[in-house]
Amino acid sequence: MFEAKLTDAKVFKDCVDAIVTLIDEGEFSATKEGITLRAMDPSQIAMVDFELPRKAFEKYELKGDLKIGLNLADLSRIMSRVRAGESLTLKLDDSASRLLLIFKGKSTRRFNLPLIDVPASATKVPSIDFDAEIKISGGVLKESLKDASLVSSHVTLLADGKGFEIRARGDKEAVVEFSKDVLLEHTVNKEAKAMFPLEYLNDLLKAVDSNGIVVLNLKTDAPLKVDYRIADARVTYYLAPRIEAA
Amino acid sequence: MFEAKLTDAKVFKDCVDAIVTLIDEGEFSATKEGITLRAMDPSQIAMVDFELPRKAFEKYELKGDLKIGLNLADLSRIMSRVRAGESLTLKLDDSASRLLLIFKGKSTRRFNLPLIDVPASATKVPSIDFDAEIKISGGVLKESLKDASLVSSHVTLLADGKGFEIRARGDKEAVVEFSKDVLLEHTVNKEAKAMFPLEYLNDLLKAVDSNGIVVLNLKTDAPLKVDYRIADARVTYYLAPRIEAA
Amino acid sequence: MFEAKLTDAKVFKDCVDAIVTLIDEGEFSATKEGITLRAMDPSQIAMVDFELPRKAFEKYELKGDLKIGLNLADLSRIMSRVRAGESLTLKLDDSASRLLLIFKGKSTRRFNLPLIDVPASATKVPSIDFDAEIKISGGVLKESLKDASLVSSHVTLLADGKGFEIRARGDKEAVVEFSKDVLLEHTVNKEAKAMFPLEYLNDLLKAVDSNGIVVLNLKTDAPLKVDYRIADARVTYYLAPRIEAA
Repeated sequence: MFEAKLTDAKVFKDCVDAIVTLIDEGEFSATKEGITLRAMDPSQIAMVDFELPRKAFEKYELKGDLKIGLNLADLSRIMSRVRAGESLTLKLDDSASRLLLIFKGKSTRRFNLPLIDVPASATKVPSIDFDAEIKISGGVLKESLKDASLVSSHVTLLADGKGFEIRARGDKEAVVEFSKDVLLEHTVNKEAKAMFPLEYLNDLLKAVDSNGIVVLNLKTDAPLKVDYRIADARVTYYLAPRIEAA
Repeated sequence: MFEAKLTDAKVFKDCVDAIVTLIDEGEFSATKEGITLRAMDPSQIAMVDFELPRKAFEKYELKGDLKIGLNLADLSRIMSRVRAGESLTLKLDDSASRLLLIFKGKSTRRFNLPLIDVPASATKVPSIDFDAEIKISGGVLKESLKDASLVSSHVTLLADGKGFEIRARGDKEAVVEFSKDVLLEHTVNKEAKAMFPLEYLNDLLKAVDSNGIVVLNLKTDAPLKVDYRIADARVTYYLAPRIEAA
Repeated sequence: MFEAKLTDAKVFKDCVDAIVTLIDEGEFSATKEGITLRAMDPSQIAMVDFELPRKAFEKYELKGDLKIGLNLADLSRIMSRVRAGESLTLKLDDSASRLLLIFKGKSTRRFNLPLIDVPASATKVPSIDFDAEIKISGGVLKESLKDASLVSSHVTLLADGKGFEIRARGDKEAVVEFSKDVLLEHTVNKEAKAMFPLEYLNDLLKAVDSNGIVVLNLKTDAPLKVDYRIADARVTYYLAPRIEAA
C-alpha cells in the first residue's frame, strides 16, 4: 500500500527528468524516509543518486518498504504533460502491479503504467576527498560547455586559487575563465584538474534550470561530483574522468 | 464572372487550413448564398462540410453558379503568406481558368493559380440523431488528446450525466475527466461512447484556435460530429468511429 | 603583429555572418585603413565586398599589412557564441599562425583557430552604370522573396517610374508591388529588369536584420548590387542575373 501526494506536480517532473537523462529503466525505493533511486548509466560512466524526502509530500502513506520499478522514459513522457497548478498523487493499484498518477487541476487526468522488474545493482556512492568546490549558476555552466563543444568532445575542468576554468582543445581551442569573485562560491584547498566527456556533462545538466545553482566537487583525475536541488529533492551525480595517457 | 472581397484575409486562411487538413484537392461551389465545399478525405473516414456565407464578404459578385476546383495544398501555402491587416480579393481571370488572389496592405501582393478538375463525389451529410452535445475549448481538447496519444493511437470519447471523458488504453492508460461544470456546455440525453483514431481527431482540430470553441456531437458507435466557427464561416466534420470486435 | 578591439563583439558576429553566407574559407586583409575581404562564392555567381574600417575599432594596432586566412564556417560558429555586452579582441599569436579571439564580459572567454592558406583570387568589383536604385527594409524584402519562393526558384526584380516589383512565375504566379511612396527611396533613370536565383538572393539577405535597410542597384540583365551596413561596416554583394533565352 502506497499513496503519496505532491502539491506541485512540476517538482516530480523535474525529478524524473534528472534521472531519465542517465537511465531508461529504474527502481525507486519507497521507505518511511521518502523516495530514493540510485543507479549507474548503462555505460557505467555516470551515477545518479536521487532523494525526494518525505517532507516534500503533502501526504505520504506507506506500509513497509517498497520497490517501484518503472520504465522511466514512459514515466517522463507522462510527466511532460504536467500543467501549471496541478497536484500529483502517486499510488499503487490494489494488486501492486501498476503505478497510478493522478493530476488534479481544472480537469482530473489519470495515467497508469505497469511496474517492471529492474535488475538489482549494488551501487555504492564513491567516497572521495575532494580538493575544490565550486558553486555556479546552471545557465552559465551550460553556456560555457556549449563554448567548449565547438572545439572538442572533451572538456577539462580546473579549479585553483584564482578561480575556475573550462578548457577544450582540438584543432581550435576554447577557454572560459571565471575569476573567483564571479562564482557563487569557490573553496579550493589544492588545485584540481580533470577531463570529462562533454556529452555526459551535458546530460547531467539537462534538467538543471538556467536559474538553478549547481555545486561541483573536483579532485585531480578523480570523478566529478555534481549536486543540485529541485525544491526539497536532492540530485547528485558522479561522473568518471577521462585519464589521458601521459 | 466572380469577384469576392474579404476585409480580413486571415479569415480565408483559417478556412483553407480547416479544409486542407483533410483533402489536398477540392472544389468550392460559389452560389448567390456564398461559398461551400463538401468532401470526404481520401480514406473515406472523415468528411468536411464547409460554408462561407455571402454576408462574410465586403463585396460579392457572381454570374450564375460556379465550381472552382483547386489544389488546396498550393492554395494553403499562398494563404500562409497572409499578413496582419490585409484584405483579400478572390477573382476568376477572364478565361475562368485561373483564380487570382489579391492581398492589399502596405504593398499589393497578387497570386494566381490554375483551376483544376476535381472528380465529382456525391457526398451526403450523414443524418444522425445524436445523444450528447459537448461544448469545449479547442485548446483544452487538443491538450487532452496529446495526453491520450502517449498511450494509444485510438481514443474513446464518453459523455454521460456526470460530464465528459477522454480515454486511451494500451500498455499504459490515460483518462481525462471533465465534470460537467468545467465544460462550456453539456447536454446529454443518454450515455454516448465511441472510439476514434487520434490521428484524424488531431487533423480535424489542427485549424482550431486554442481559444476557439468546439462543439462535439456523440452517439454510441456512431460518427462524431465536430463543429466550429471561423468568423462567419462554419466548419463541420464527421468522423467514422472504430467499432471494436466484442 | 596585430591586435584590434571592438567594444561590441556582436558587430563582428554580424560581419562574419554576412560573409560566411557565400564562402566557407576566406582571407581578410588588414591594413592601416581597417579590415577588408573580397571574394566570389564557389559557383562564381555572387561576390562579397566587405569593409570594416579602422574607426570601427576601440583599439587597432598593426605592423605592416597582413593576410589572415580563416575557415569562416569555424569562425562563424565561434562568433555565434557571443553574449550581450561583450567586447572582442582579435589578435595574432606570436608565431602568427593562429587567430586569438578574446570575449570579455562577466567571464573571459578565449578561443583560437589556426590560420589557413586561401588560394588567391584576383577579384575585381564590377563597374556597372546602374539605372535604378531602391532603398527598402530588409524585413519587407525578405518576406516578399518568401512570397515568390512559393511559385518559382527564380525571381524577376523590376524598377520603373511607378515603383518596384518582385515577380515569380511557374505553374502559379506571384507579384509583389511596391508603389514608390512605400519605398524608403526610389531613384529610377530608366526601367530596369533582371532575373535572379532566389536561393542566392536569400543567402545575400540572410545576415540582414529585419529592421536593417538594404540598397538595391539594378540595370536590365546586369548584375544586382546589394548594399547594407552593420554599424560602421559596409557589406556589398554583386549577383549575376539569369539571362533567359529569348
